[in-house]
Amino acid sequence: MDELKVFTGNAHPSLAKAVTDYLGKPLGKCEVFEFSNENIFVRILENVRERDVFVIQPICSPVNKSLVELLIMLDALKRASAGRITAVVPYYGYARTDKKDQPRVPITARLVADLITVAGAHRVLTVDLHAGQIQGFFNIPVDELTALYILKDYFKKKGLDGNLVVVATDIGISKKARDLATRLNAPLAIMEKRRIGNADKSEALNVIGEVDKRVALTVDDEIDTAGSLVNTVHTLLDKGVKEVYACCTHPVLSGPAISRIAASPVKELVVTDTIPVPPEKRLDKIVVLSIAPLLGEAIQRIHSGQSIGAMFEQA
Amino acid sequence: MDELKVFTGNAHPSLAKAVTDYLGKPLGKCEVFEFSNENIFVRILENVRERDVFVIQPICSPVNKSLVELLIMLDALKRASAGRITAVVPYYGYARTDKKDQPRVPITARLVADLITVAGAHRVLTVDLHAGQIQGFFNIPVDELTALYILKDYFKKKGLDGNLVVVATDIGISKKARDLATRLNAPLAIMEKRRIGNADKSEALNVIGEVDKRVALTVDDEIDTAGSLVNTVHTLLDKGVKEVYACCTHPVLSGPAISRIAASPVKELVVTDTIPVPPEKRLDKIVVLSIAPLLGEAIQRIHSGQSIGAMFEQA
Amino acid sequence: MDELKVFTGNAHPSLAKAVTDYLGKPLGKCEVFEFSNENIFVRILENVRERDVFVIQPICSPVNKSLVELLIMLDALKRASAGRITAVVPYYGYARTDKKDQPRVPITARLVADLITVAGAHRVLTVDLHAGQIQGFFNIPVDELTALYILKDYFKKKGLDGNLVVVATDIGISKKARDLATRLNAPLAIMEKRRIGNADKSEALNVIGEVDKRVALTVDDEIDTAGSLVNTVHTLLDKGVKEVYACCTHPVLSGPAISRIAASPVKELVVTDTIPVPPEKRLDKIVVLSIAPLLGEAIQRIHSGQSIGAMFEQA
Amino acid sequence: MDELKVFTGNAHPSLAKAVTDYLGKPLGKCEVFEFSNENIFVRILENVRERDVFVIQPICSPVNKSLVELLIMLDALKRASAGRITAVVPYYGYARTDKKDQPRVPITARLVADLITVAGAHRVLTVDLHAGQIQGFFNIPVDELTALYILKDYFKKKGLDGNLVVVATDIGISKKARDLATRLNAPLAIMEKRRIGNADKSEALNVIGEVDKRVALTVDDEIDTAGSLVNTVHTLLDKGVKEVYACCTHPVLSGPAISRIAASPVKELVVTDTIPVPPEKRLDKIVVLSIAPLLGEAIQRIHSGQSIGAMFEQA
Amino acid sequence: MDELKVFTGNAHPSLAKAVTDYLGKPLGKCEVFEFSNENIFVRILENVRERDVFVIQPICSPVNKSLVELLIMLDALKRASAGRITAVVPYYGYARTDKKDQPRVPITARLVADLITVAGAHRVLTVDLHAGQIQGFFNIPVDELTALYILKDYFKKKGLDGNLVVVATDIGISKKARDLATRLNAPLAIMEKRRIGNADKSEALNVIGEVDKRVALTVDDEIDTAGSLVNTVHTLLDKGVKEVYACCTHPVLSGPAISRIAASPVKELVVTDTIPVPPEKRLDKIVVLSIAPLLGEAIQRIHSGQSIGAMFEQA
Amino acid sequence: MDELKVFTGNAHPSLAKAVTDYLGKPLGKCEVFEFSNENIFVRILENVRERDVFVIQPICSPVNKSLVELLIMLDALKRASAGRITAVVPYYGYARTDKKDQPRVPITARLVADLITVAGAHRVLTVDLHAGQIQGFFNIPVDELTALYILKDYFKKKGLDGNLVVVATDIGISKKARDLATRLNAPLAIMEKRRIGNADKSEALNVIGEVDKRVALTVDDEIDTAGSLVNTVHTLLDKGVKEVYACCTHPVLSGPAISRIAASPVKELVVTDTIPVPPEKRLDKIVVLSIAPLLGEAIQRIHSGQSIGAMFEQA
Repeated sequence: MDELKVFTGNAHPSLAKAVTDYLGKPLGKCEVFEFSNENIFVRILENVRERDVFVIQPICSPVNKSLVELLIMLDALKRASAGRITAVVPYYGYARTDKKDQPRVPITARLVADLITVAGAHRVLTVDLHAGQIQGFFNIPVDELTALYILKDYFKKKGLDGNLVVVATDIGISKKARDLATRLNAPLAIMEKRRIGNADKSEALNVIGEVDKRVALTVDDEIDTAGSLVNTVHTLLDKGVKEVYACCTHPVLSGPAISRIAASPVKELVVTDTIPVPPEKRLDKIVVLSIAPLLGEAIQRIHSGQSIGAMFEQA
Repeated sequence: MDELKVFTGNAHPSLAKAVTDYLGKPLGKCEVFEFSNENIFVRILENVRERDVFVIQPICSPVNKSLVELLIMLDALKRASAGRITAVVPYYGYARTDKKDQPRVPITARLVADLITVAGAHRVLTVDLHAGQIQGFFNIPVDELTALYILKDYFKKKGLDGNLVVVATDIGISKKARDLATRLNAPLAIMEKRRIGNADKSEALNVIGEVDKRVALTVDDEIDTAGSLVNTVHTLLDKGVKEVYACCTHPVLSGPAISRIAASPVKELVVTDTIPVPPEKRLDKIVVLSIAPLLGEAIQRIHSGQSIGAMFEQA
Repeated sequence: MDELKVFTGNAHPSLAKAVTDYLGKPLGKCEVFEFSNENIFVRILENVRERDVFVIQPICSPVNKSLVELLIMLDALKRASAGRITAVVPYYGYARTDKKDQPRVPITARLVADLITVAGAHRVLTVDLHAGQIQGFFNIPVDELTALYILKDYFKKKGLDGNLVVVATDIGISKKARDLATRLNAPLAIMEKRRIGNADKSEALNVIGEVDKRVALTVDDEIDTAGSLVNTVHTLLDKGVKEVYACCTHPVLSGPAISRIAASPVKELVVTDTIPVPPEKRLDKIVVLSIAPLLGEAIQRIHSGQSIGAMFEQA
Repeated sequence: MDELKVFTGNAHPSLAKAVTDYLGKPLGKCEVFEFSNENIFVRILENVRERDVFVIQPICSPVNKSLVELLIMLDALKRASAGRITAVVPYYGYARTDKKDQPRVPITARLVADLITVAGAHRVLTVDLHAGQIQGFFNIPVDELTALYILKDYFKKKGLDGNLVVVATDIGISKKARDLATRLNAPLAIMEKRRIGNADKSEALNVIGEVDKRVALTVDDEIDTAGSLVNTVHTLLDKGVKEVYACCTHPVLSGPAISRIAASPVKELVVTDTIPVPPEKRLDKIVVLSIAPLLGEAIQRIHSGQSIGAMFEQA
Repeated sequence: MDELKVFTGNAHPSLAKAVTDYLGKPLGKCEVFEFSNENIFVRILENVRERDVFVIQPICSPVNKSLVELLIMLDALKRASAGRITAVVPYYGYARTDKKDQPRVPITARLVADLITVAGAHRVLTVDLHAGQIQGFFNIPVDELTALYILKDYFKKKGLDGNLVVVATDIGISKKARDLATRLNAPLAIMEKRRIGNADKSEALNVIGEVDKRVALTVDDEIDTAGSLVNTVHTLLDKGVKEVYACCTHPVLSGPAISRIAASPVKELVVTDTIPVPPEKRLDKIVVLSIAPLLGEAIQRIHSGQSIGAMFEQA
Repeated sequence: MDELKVFTGNAHPSLAKAVTDYLGKPLGKCEVFEFSNENIFVRILENVRERDVFVIQPICSPVNKSLVELLIMLDALKRASAGRITAVVPYYGYARTDKKDQPRVPITARLVADLITVAGAHRVLTVDLHAGQIQGFFNIPVDELTALYILKDYFKKKGLDGNLVVVATDIGISKKARDLATRLNAPLAIMEKRRIGNADKSEALNVIGEVDKRVALTVDDEIDTAGSLVNTVHTLLDKGVKEVYACCTHPVLSGPAISRIAASPVKELVVTDTIPVPPEKRLDKIVVLSIAPLLGEAIQRIHSGQSIGAMFEQA
């Protein structure tokens, strides 16, 4: 496989820049812009024939534009005779619509997999999928990295691990929370939402497991509007928790998220930069750790045929 | 094939309503909305098993959202066991990116065809494609309707045809302009843009053909920013044209279009409603003719296995 | 769609018989047997042209033979011009291999989906998948039924619900356990396995949540060797639980399962017949509820284009 | 990618020879012949495992045999484990059937794209497609070369450009004619056919644009029976044109073409050798320019991963 | 499935006419012709939406044109929204190239299957394939009829069966010869070609089995140049056979076939009309039996969902 | 293509070992085992990114497990980003179900081809297919080796060729028998089974050809239950044959095969090790020749892009 080239769309150019800095290469030259009629146009400005090409584009806000932009870039690269095309999707949008849990709904996470494949990707590189099964939505190879070790190392260094309890903010995330709890040598507790009576919207939030007098660290794969997080923090404090830290891989932080977090007694929220966190969202208590070295290392290994699995073995 | 059902996304619900009125049926019930994180969610609220389902959704502003919404609706209907799914796309966005006329650009119109197919459509119904070859981008059946007769009838009734010249606003549209000219029994003229000298942006606009002392009717498949239209109008008036009417099928009207048209001496711009024209764009001199009866009739015929070709034979 | 026909392989003929009894139809005639060289041979003995055909075959022991038998039946029906073929797979084997949680492992549940599709199925009907995302492994429509209401009704009638706690035997099943807990109006507890020290195999089993002095009902989608179940029962009794009931949809019951259950203080194990439970495994404390009416009703509705979702709405 | 090999069928072996001469390589050895029953048989006589293979075969007379021969060669190469197969199709037959402009007609140009792909081509190299959109009929990479610069250079050298007008022989070709006109710094005129009255076949030929006292150069992508060309020449001379030159890329020259051209006052017809022009068609006034260096250079660049776009940048 | 419609290309219109006569229906209206440039053009002249369409077209001389014509008709019907399309291919050309028996040759019979499928056929109806495995080259349903019973009945009526020996003209046909021999209650003999010494072309023809003093009936699936047949006849007569009859399903009869048969002492050659036998080939000793009733009956049964297998059960 | 790696499942590890010995490489490390619930699990234990991977797995007893194991290994390798995957299937099970010779039966040999392809193989290497057409069931390249020369050399060395007759044990194998006969310079005879009267099972076995006073060598591609073989031996001895040798490529030897062979007067049965022959089946009169050098050489050549055809040219 010939020379490695990395391109980026408009979803997260600073991450792409950090990755190419890690790799010691310039970003590939291309134009990716919208006409007045909102049609996205792509022009690759350097020869990619038989090259080993990576396109870095999280499916983050503006979500649908980021997705379509990615697809059009893949099409342009395919028709430009790129040798191998890897879609690098640090945040896989639509991942939560991954099953039919009510009649006549889509499985959009599978649809997105089909769109990426039909547009021309030969392989995918991603980070902390909402559900591991999404790998199976593809028939092309998927390498899934995890921010687990980055987050663990951060909290290890912080020295919180003496009296910690790791808390899954939702039953659905309990397996990932357990993985972090194990590595921090902490017990696990799980938040459970339960509807009360027949009134449609009123819900109780139960804590399953022991949390009293401990420091809590809540875990999620992504934080969207921060509603669950904020409720969890209050409930934990009510149950005798001393202070609450929070972490997640993907800082979606949509709608009221930032104002809720600002107003909440959560001590610190630690996230990665799979999604850009613009300056106006950068509260003092939000810590952003970079995923770029992980992505850069993985791209280097994919390009040279080295094991990705080996990156996580020692961890 | 069982019962006919028509659904709509959020791109153009009033057109869908007009079509179902023509058909004498209620619109199919469904939820199609965006969460705070911009993820589109779809839920079909009535049984569609083995039904003959049509989804009406032009790929118009917000373009990428309209496209993704359409794809997700198709996925939901496919997984809900719809018997046959027809994507009704009155305006096929991205149609102008239909060939590689420079190195390393995409063919987005083909990509869109693949996306629609992979998402689950069994057939497509559309109106006045930018290029007829886009039908060949699909391997599922495509029925393409034309607004040509609607526009022709309008201008026939107007009684302009005595001293008319039909003008293609661009060489690329000259074939369609000829079709209208033939039916209006008028000669044809063609606008040609030509770069002057080496200065990158300066262009001359030539009129090929006789226009002096005539009433001109410019034709296009779509009007986007109206830049070409406005230049054409001025050039024609300079060349001795008495007054200028304009028509097109698809009123994209993006960016400065409305202010340009308002300021221009064009007498009237006649369009159809394949794309919604919101009240704030409804200048007095813009006439919107409805495509709904044409779409309704075509849907009825597709459902019952009657010829679509026969709709245009007498015309 | 023409006449409905139901066929069965050798995996679970008595279930197929019960389904056709529900439908008031005879089973379709076919030969499905192994030659001396273990090659499975299939011959459909009645005309299936344009018929609406269902093949009932759980992927249960002998697992690989059941799977290949299903695939060969699908191929025979496809080549015999069946109009529509639904693979009815009450137990979807290999479902637990649904993600790459370590390097260089397969996603066999996706592979199985591809095999079923390439062999000729147009749709799939199944029961309580290990993960809902497996629906997304298919691009043909999947109808997933649930035994949740059958199990809930059984325990409701038993009158246990006063002082009950529902227990997920593993973190991975906690969401399904919560669904049952909600419907039985009981709190939820979750078993968590944790490795102790560096010794490779030694594990502790924690109970997350309150269980003391309650009656416990453990939930799982399937019970295989019954190791987790038996450990859970002992741990719960140690933690003060009064008595333990167990339930699951799929009675795999392989290897030491029956002897372990016989020796265990579990009061009762309630399962369904998605997998055959042969007489020698029918301990007194094992209750087998039939899934046949649910499958029969679903087949009837798929055939006649009625909603499957409606079967579960009132529940 | 291993060693480059070039094979040819029977459609145009002399062009293939000229291309391999340019490349400084011998033609690949193979047998391609028809049995008495007209079945084409192919045998590749040298090892092609993992080689980078090019098959040169225009889809020209005998058209259907040339097409099927190409498909069978692709199948043989695929099954012989060729590493990469490029179908080099200097003339893409059936290109004019590229859209459904009347009910119930095929889109044969798309069908041909599917046939080439299904037979085993990984990529296509072609020259001056009738419509650029045909590139979008493929989902494998297509490199389209143009003879525009070869033709332009010829007429530049001829010194005709002082008082020239470039004439599109049909509205459909007007865009390509404009491209040549721009490069020759000449104005553009366009021929328009118009039916007269109700009599079915009687047509008038209009000239749109100024031609009087000029030297005309007509442009087309291909000349088939030369009917349009000859009518155009007469009409132009009637309109005061001094003399008429003609050019096109693809000399189909079927049926009465040669006798028409011989009898016509056209001064010179300049074509390329994408299609063989046998000695009996080589009138004195027909000039055949060779496309072989262009094809050879493109093959060399595809093989070595260099840009094709760069071949036309300086032009 | 709606109304049945039968169309034909130019390969064998009289057979299509005989089939539609059997069905009591008119042939579907369509234009299928070649332009001067040899491009085949197809236009279906009646509405086929959702109709059950059959296209009758043997792949016989002109072989490649017949094949491409079939493919283009399939494409036109697919794009015209035909409900179901059956390619009726009474003679499947290229069937003898069905395996790689030397390095780097194609498997054209598989290629043809892929071409037919990609062009749009949903199913295939054919007669006496050269090898039954060709059915497996398709993944769409194939119904293969046999002329065996027609031929058997003819020779039964002739009263030859007393002292008959059935002779396979080649080892490859011995299985089919055995089937006829069994039904005529006759022993079997097999012709075997064997190269002599090292001289490349000299071959001996052995008779395996007893033929002396018997009447021989040679069997083949097709007779092409009649070389094998004529050699077989001479060898059999040399071995003491009294007289030789010959039969085959497909009368290819290319090149020297007719003159060889005329000059040969074979008493009678009985064939069917899967391929047209034009008047100039109709020697007195060639008997042509019609396959039309068999095809007509099969089409009727496919259309109405009745068993094809049942047509041959009583036989 | 990078480094060559060879893996094996559980079907025939000793053959895989012999092949890697020939190649001078260690076997690739992987775990392939069954859980208690019979689910096969695969884990590749070394990095295979971009490597040229071969999986050796005959589809032999336990047939269905061997097949599924192969498919799962292919899936694991595909998802582990192997560069090229060759399924090495020395014995292709289910090959005898290669056509629809009665109504409503499968074509399992085609199904198996599709399963192997969909699971992820890029190419196939196999030995002596039951029918050459099975190569055409694949659209990926297939290299078929033959044991013909190994068997021929064995019998040549034995010096039997003076008075030998080669006997096809069934009409279906007569072509392969002829190939061996030609190379041993021996005449050919063919066994023909014929039903007697109406009694369903009673069959006569005819010998077609001269065998009296000769030494017979029977040929088959595989020997399954040895019923035909044993009957053939008796019939031949009855017809005056002096002694009978037997050979085949694939020693299936299922059910009563070994006891039948032991009791039969056949002098020697010569087979290859495409299928393991366990010690308890190794009768003194069974000779097993190794196919490993042939497979090893072919793998080496596929890896390095050398001709496979050349391996058999000098033979």
